Amino acid sequence: MEEHSLRTVFFISDGTGITAETLGHSLLAQFPDCRFRHVRAPFVDSLDKAHDCVRQIRAAALRDGRRPIVVSTLVNAEVVAALREADALYLDLFEQYIGPLESELGMRSTHTVGRFHGIAESEDYKSRIEAINFALAHDDGQSNAKLAESDVILVGVSRSGKTPTSLYLAMQFGVKAANYPLIPEDFERNKLPADITQHRNKLYGLTITPERLSQIRQERRPNSKYAALDNCRQEIEAAQRLMRREGIPFIESTTRSIEEISAKILQEVRINHSTY
Amino acid sequence: MEEHSLRTVFFISDGTGITAETLGHSLLAQFPDCRFRHVRAPFVDSLDKAHDCVRQIRAAALRDGRRPIVVSTLVNAEVVAALREADALYLDLFEQYIGPLESELGMRSTHTVGRFHGIAESEDYKSRIEAINFALAHDDGQSNAKLAESDVILVGVSRSGKTPTSLYLAMQFGVKAANYPLIPEDFERNKLPADITQHRNKLYGLTITPERLSQIRQERRPNSKYAALDNCRQEIEAAQRLMRREGIPFIESTTRSIEEISAKILQEVRINHSTY
Repeated sequence: MEEHSLRTVFFISDGTGITAETLGHSLLAQFPDCRFRHVRAPFVDSLDKAHDCVRQIRAAALRDGRRPIVVSTLVNAEVVAALREADALYLDLFEQYIGPLESELGMRSTHTVGRFHGIAESEDYKSRIEAINFALAHDDGQSNAKLAESDVILVGVSRSGKTPTSLYLAMQFGVKAANYPLIPEDFERNKLPADITQHRNKLYGLTITPERLSQIRQERRPNSKYAALDNCRQEIEAAQRLMRREGIPFIESTTRSIEEISAKILQEVRINHSTY
Repeated sequence: MEEHSLRTVFFISDGTGITAETLGHSLLAQFPDCRFRHVRAPFVDSLDKAHDCVRQIRAAALRDGRRPIVVSTLVNAEVVAALREADALYLDLFEQYIGPLESELGMRSTHTVGRFHGIAESEDYKSRIEAINFALAHDDGQSNAKLAESDVILVGVSRSGKTPTSLYLAMQFGVKAANYPLIPEDFERNKLPADITQHRNKLYGLTITPERLSQIRQERRPNSKYAALDNCRQEIEAAQRLMRREGIPFIESTTRSIEEISAKILQEVRINHSTY
């Protein structure tokens, strides 16, 4: 059947190719019945490299029996022209959008090759790296010393998704996220330590279903009390009670990706990282 | 001057908005002389929310004295139509590309709202979370137990960029990256431990300039021998000598972003994570 045959998709860029890939994945996700083979071709910044891509595109077309799809972010017109010698469906980001932007802004774009050129020295980039280091230093409640510096403090039971979410917030948005695990001691007191509650407006909770939590914990400590479904259920109930009592908003992480959780948190905590 | 006045850019999506932002940042980076104010509007999946965006776009136009730019990934045609009531330059990902893809693939797209819908259950997503946990467990040489499971092992002196790079490889690509710090003991022996060298084909080195390394280390341990420029220079020279001797390819991290370093490593280590 046409729907289930394999088609090759190339992500071609003169930079890292991450924009092309992000774009491409979003588009291809709209065609779940198709099977795609992904080929990444970053740093295509010369005619030689473009010709090499042309060879790969033609080989894929022969192998698949259908022409490939090329999602690209290419700035150099000569490289673009060289690439187009192969037969493919070309979806190029710059070609499509740079023209309208140039008219709108009343100026020519720089046509700078490589999206991340020079980005390592930018303030935005430095704040992202700083936020990653912050997340690592403030993971799992290991230090409450600099919580005042944090943009958000994630709370939740062990293995509810706090660490990957705080790393994603740092990496994608430069947001400094600490995290604090809710443990049986907190439940017994039914209140949070003062050095956490003094930052109440930064607190955001993650919760999870007992079944999923037990499954995740089983992978780490099989057949432990820690991983037992009953224990997970009790911890989650106690955590939700505590978060409600303390007025901490929380989100269910079971069926949400860290991207989705992070976007929700940013929206609700209203962190303003929008100028760079 | 036209070039230096502020213009508001909206990233509007029915999902997390991360694709729209990534796309938008790449495009706007081509206009370094312009100043943009970024407004993120994720989860715009109803007419009410679209109308709220329209109000925000109009307010921004009044404040800036020029119409905003809207970069969007919207699937629902009614939401798109509602949004277009405001005057702005609209750059919509789906509108532009879904049509050509539908013709090419000979099928309709699902028009599924929210890019990450259901992604949390996908194999790809699970492997990314697993890779993040792997990177955290194998950070800074803290465990060599499961190095055989790794896709890549980063080596380099302390603070050369191994940890953020391994986390980025995990988060973006689902690549399992361990890292091993090169320490004075390794330099004295002028060889690496056997449990590292047995995975020689996975080793990839990061290096950095002595000046930058000293600066980064100063922030952590001011006025220490660890941070002294002379000591940094010696460690880096010894590390590069060792990497050359062991035949480990390495890359300069000083002026490169973790995105760029990761893309280079993937390209050279030829990890095949290209089917999902």
